Amino acid sequence: MKRKLLPIGAALVVLTIPAVPQQRKSLDEEYRETAGKLIGAAMVDTAGWQKLAYLCDRIGNRVSGSASLERAIQWGAEQMKADGLENVTTPPVDVPHWVRGKESATLESPITRSLTMLGLGGSIATPPGGITAEVVPVSSFDDLEKKGRAAVQGKIVLYNEANMGYGRTVIYRTSGASRAAKLGAVAALVRSVDTATTLQTVHTGNMRYADDAPMVPTAAVTVEDALLIQRLFDSGDTVRVHLEMAAQTLPDARAANVVGEIRGREKPEEVVVIGGHIDSWDVGQGAQDDGSGMVAALAAAHIIHELGLRPRRTLRVVFWVNEENGAAGGRAYRQSVGDIKSHVAAIEMDGGAEKPVGFGMTMEAGNSDRALGLMQQIGKLLEGIGAGQMTKGGGGTDIEALMKDGVPGLGLRTVGMHYSDWHHTTSDTLDKVNPEDFRQCIATMAVMSYILADMPDTLGQ
Amino acid sequence: MKRKLLPIGAALVVLTIPAVPQQRKSLDEEYRETAGKLIGAAMVDTAGWQKLAYLCDRIGNRVSGSASLERAIQWGAEQMKADGLENVTTPPVDVPHWVRGKESATLESPITRSLTMLGLGGSIATPPGGITAEVVPVSSFDDLEKKGRAAVQGKIVLYNEANMGYGRTVIYRTSGASRAAKLGAVAALVRSVDTATTLQTVHTGNMRYADDAPMVPTAAVTVEDALLIQRLFDSGDTVRVHLEMAAQTLPDARAANVVGEIRGREKPEEVVVIGGHIDSWDVGQGAQDDGSGMVAALAAAHIIHELGLRPRRTLRVVFWVNEENGAAGGRAYRQSVGDIKSHVAAIEMDGGAEKPVGFGMTMEAGNSDRALGLMQQIGKLLEGIGAGQMTKGGGGTDIEALMKDGVPGLGLRTVGMHYSDWHHTTSDTLDKVNPEDFRQCIATMAVMSYILADMPDTLGQ
Repeated sequence: MKRKLLPIGAALVVLTIPAVPQQRKSLDEEYRETAGKLIGAAMVDTAGWQKLAYLCDRIGNRVSGSASLERAIQWGAEQMKADGLENVTTPPVDVPHWVRGKESATLESPITRSLTMLGLGGSIATPPGGITAEVVPVSSFDDLEKKGRAAVQGKIVLYNEANMGYGRTVIYRTSGASRAAKLGAVAALVRSVDTATTLQTVHTGNMRYADDAPMVPTAAVTVEDALLIQRLFDSGDTVRVHLEMAAQTLPDARAANVVGEIRGREKPEEVVVIGGHIDSWDVGQGAQDDGSGMVAALAAAHIIHELGLRPRRTLRVVFWVNEENGAAGGRAYRQSVGDIKSHVAAIEMDGGAEKPVGFGMTMEAGNSDRALGLMQQIGKLLEGIGAGQMTKGGGGTDIEALMKDGVPGLGLRTVGMHYSDWHHTTSDTLDKVNPEDFRQCIATMAVMSYILADMPDTLGQ
Repeated sequence: MKRKLLPIGAALVVLTIPAVPQQRKSLDEEYRETAGKLIGAAMVDTAGWQKLAYLCDRIGNRVSGSASLERAIQWGAEQMKADGLENVTTPPVDVPHWVRGKESATLESPITRSLTMLGLGGSIATPPGGITAEVVPVSSFDDLEKKGRAAVQGKIVLYNEANMGYGRTVIYRTSGASRAAKLGAVAALVRSVDTATTLQTVHTGNMRYADDAPMVPTAAVTVEDALLIQRLFDSGDTVRVHLEMAAQTLPDARAANVVGEIRGREKPEEVVVIGGHIDSWDVGQGAQDDGSGMVAALAAAHIIHELGLRPRRTLRVVFWVNEENGAAGGRAYRQSVGDIKSHVAAIEMDGGAEKPVGFGMTMEAGNSDRALGLMQQIGKLLEGIGAGQMTKGGGGTDIEALMKDGVPGLGLRTVGMHYSDWHHTTSDTLDKVNPEDFRQCIATMAVMSYILADMPDTLGQ
């Protein structure tokens, strides 16, 4: 067919004129050849993995306010430039600056044993010398309320609900301290939010103090230690724990988002933004959460660039900062955008780089059925690598502000087998990322982002 | 049938006189009713679990020479008495007394990061202030030899073979230090001997110095850290680690085996011995390794006693001491036995309390096919709980000295899904033992040990 010889997009431009979408080629027909090139390039890509390895091994974890985050930002901008992106900038963002400090927890009665713990991000310190108090385990907020002030006043509350899925269990981590403090508790411990596997594994993560409760220190303990405390308590003993934390929140630190583009060839003012977050927690390497996401987004753009493809609209890569404890990067990015109409889609990869299965999509305004239908056409091109499932729901913390203002938001979805075991722990390290799965994530991000940036219509219209 | 009204064993005594085994009832026919009672009692047993919980939570880990081992020995003897065993004794055994002391390993170059490590049992200390040296990763002993003295002299060797199964990989832990020291290495690190799952998990375990090599300190590091070192090394960097260990071996300590019996009603001088080991490593709770084994053996005897069953021969329960780093308990027990002919079978449970599948059997003398055939008859009674597989091979460290002298040795076998992930780690804790699986182990131990102690013939004749 002659069409192959036409410049990419030429045929499509013609097709947009009649504005009869049902007579057009479907997106999978239109982009089959291009998708094949993108997937093929991802399957033999090594540059993405090398970047991820450098970030993990040489820069390491990079919590907001840390020197390693600064290094990561600088390095990230260099990588974008080296990969051929245009307009690379590092717009400044002020981020919370929480520092863990020395910390420990010890079971003092009825037996003596050191506990495996991690303070929660945002927690205050204990008084110097620590807190020693009785522990009262509770199975839920309902249980806490039922036990009431009489049971927890002056004590340490241990939230020990069995894992009910991250979404449900994480509330003890985020708001458990204030809920307990409101009833007079002097500290809160949270059974580590994990999934099936625990090998004395402890997950940190963000917490927030409510305005109407005293601030008390809070930390996660392993499932093993939570169950031990529960058993000792259930046998009628008074369980006492000594908690010592030197955590502090310093004045906000200056950090930055990292932004680069493949400028659109026809409608450069229209933007599809893709990315992941550049910060991580202060343990492990932030490999799955979210080194894999930010690097996969860049690697996708790199492949598009290397193939000489320039989409109709601008494809913008962003490494958002401070996803873990504030989302300042996502908010700052939204502000920088100005007129939200410039953004036709936002894609975040922040669920780890296990084998991808597709995308979840959130669309606050417009015809989301139509949008999903278009995504499903693109999904047909991803079925061959098992990543063709397109569903409603999902997105990402960093694109939340965009989505709230009407931008269709997509989140890469994976099989999600072990992500929750790893993220926010010391074991979120490069070895947890399977290079084959990672390449499939790059391919999936490349195909979706390129077509969204290039197709005649947009998801929203 | 009238036979049900006869005292147990009466019918069997009659059957032994003609000595025509092929005309006898098979063991599964003969013991079906008794096995049903034993399995039923195990399924509703709570005393076994309570003992295991006490041992794990209240006594904790119990390495040879420790005060907690002393407590465990005293407690173990009390439990045997409370469970109705006779002739409860704690014959003294001198055991090695290795103490871990303070220890740490730090990556100093090309990046700075603390490593997760555990010194190996028996290791010497580093000089005060520690050792700082280049690390040379090797993939095997062959690789070490190929690299040779020029490559490892004055350096730290890291054994980084991917796990090939415990049996094969454990040799780096046991003899890696001396093999490296022979070529001039100043210390040896071993990639933690684990199975599929690692969450910064590090396994300790015993090591031994060869007579013909200098003694150098040795420790395990996590798979994560071993892979990190390998990647840094492979990228051409000089990798330097600072290792500091204060381990020491004190003079032998006085400990004890714990022994109790259900005295045989007809041939009390003939013994079936069952048990597990009472010591553990000095991390975690020694729940799977081997609290579950020793307690299951006692719980099996307890059930037999509670049902008013007294086997033809003596059923002896032993909690062997010092399995982990010397096997002094097993050797001392063998010596105490005198004439080996008194022992008609030995059963050890030291592979954890995951779901049992049957027994492995080693028989150095006599007709092992006949013995396996008898075990398979018993196995038919265990098929209903999935534990009927009887195979050749297996036993246990503590019964090795008995097996060597001709006693048929049986080792409980389980599905073995996660045992190697847990044992010798901080996460070998009570929560890893599934109470349902544990009850099935008790049932399996009870049925096999009772029938071996009661059946007309023995496995050996």
